[in-house]
Amino acid sequence: MSPKVPKAYLDARRAEIVEAAARCFMEKGFYNTTMQDIYQATKLSPGAVYNYFNNKEDIVSAAVEMSQQRNSVFFTLAASGNPDQALKKVSQSFLDYARQIDLAKVASVDFALYSEASRNPRIRESLRAGQDAIIAKLVGLVKHHQQLGVFDKSLDAEAISRVLISLFVGIEIHKTLTPDFNLDSYAAVIETIIDGNFSRPGKRNRRVNKSGSKPKSSSREVSR
Amino acid sequence: MSPKVPKAYLDARRAEIVEAAARCFMEKGFYNTTMQDIYQATKLSPGAVYNYFNNKEDIVSAAVEMSQQRNSVFFTLAASGNPDQALKKVSQSFLDYARQIDLAKVASVDFALYSEASRNPRIRESLRAGQDAIIAKLVGLVKHHQQLGVFDKSLDAEAISRVLISLFVGIEIHKTLTPDFNLDSYAAVIETIIDGNFSRPGKRNRRVNKSGSKPKSSSREVSR
Repeated sequence: MSPKVPKAYLDARRAEIVEAAARCFMEKGFYNTTMQDIYQATKLSPGAVYNYFNNKEDIVSAAVEMSQQRNSVFFTLAASGNPDQALKKVSQSFLDYARQIDLAKVASVDFALYSEASRNPRIRESLRAGQDAIIAKLVGLVKHHQQLGVFDKSLDAEAISRVLISLFVGIEIHKTLTPDFNLDSYAAVIETIIDGNFSRPGKRNRRVNKSGSKPKSSSREVSR
Repeated sequence: MSPKVPKAYLDARRAEIVEAAARCFMEKGFYNTTMQDIYQATKLSPGAVYNYFNNKEDIVSAAVEMSQQRNSVFFTLAASGNPDQALKKVSQSFLDYARQIDLAKVASVDFALYSEASRNPRIRESLRAGQDAIIAKLVGLVKHHQQLGVFDKSLDAEAISRVLISLFVGIEIHKTLTPDFNLDSYAAVIETIIDGNFSRPGKRNRRVNKSGSKPKSSSREVSR
């Protein structure tokens, strides 16, 4: 690759190949996609593609890096405002992103990669690096929320971060199986959890206790 | 298939084929597994397998049905006790199950199927039927928790149920990418959410508000 070619051009060409590969993965699955399929989808010569990527795993690593860059923007944007609202802003960025893309198609590729990860250490390491980067950033925000008293301080911040990731990745599953599922209602639950309004400990303490004794029937109806 | 063959025998043989197919899906992925691979894995003749299943989709439907039966047991067991504790019991059953199985392998098949679901309507419908059955049962328990005041009553019970499903399915993602991830800490977060102790609205209300104003620095340190 000539060192004289501008970086922006190279980056754009790289992104083009990654996108073409993603289309192939969506249509045929990761395992069944060949480098030949990817050349055809990009309309580039094999040599041109090999300038950037030697194999499918390299392309996946690049795709994970690109999504990490996008995620970083979400966190950077959130960090520029009130720290107490940063986690909420990150969550909103993810939810907005989920609303904008063709989520079922993205999910199809993501799940193919998760499945492949159990057989293919390079894919697993790429995906894990991407996830670890998000967790590291989430942990900071979660700890701040624990300091504020919004989240239970006795819980492990990494575990809470993983729970938040599950809530976002779960959207892909619901969208895949139930294309018309109500993302707004689901998002409202996530936002309520992040706001610290999901549960009502004050009322709960009077009604559910560890001994498992039943509440009095007269206290069943709880007004908010 | 002779009507004289006892049902228990037929069920056992069916389950055997489903398990052999699952092993093939884990090793080769769903798409790459052929019926030929499945005959070999079962050590049965093609004719014997065809007595039960015509194709891979039929086997997946059967697998989903079998997992639905297992899930039903979790809900039935939970329903036999104090209704206020039912959701917690169901959650514990799922978490215990996740601890007992080789989760990374199960996840690999699950993700291959989720990925396939976007291309294959029969797979999607099978998986969706399984998920809808769980959601229907969860909704009842979630509504009870909302009545008790443990969960915010203004939220959609189906959306909360989907959030809970995401928390359980998310375990498969964390286990796949990070085999040594701490399931116990993660389970503690789920249990705290279900108990209604995850967030501390009383304290939160003093520190985070909708206008996004910063808390006073003196109130940063919150003791539990």
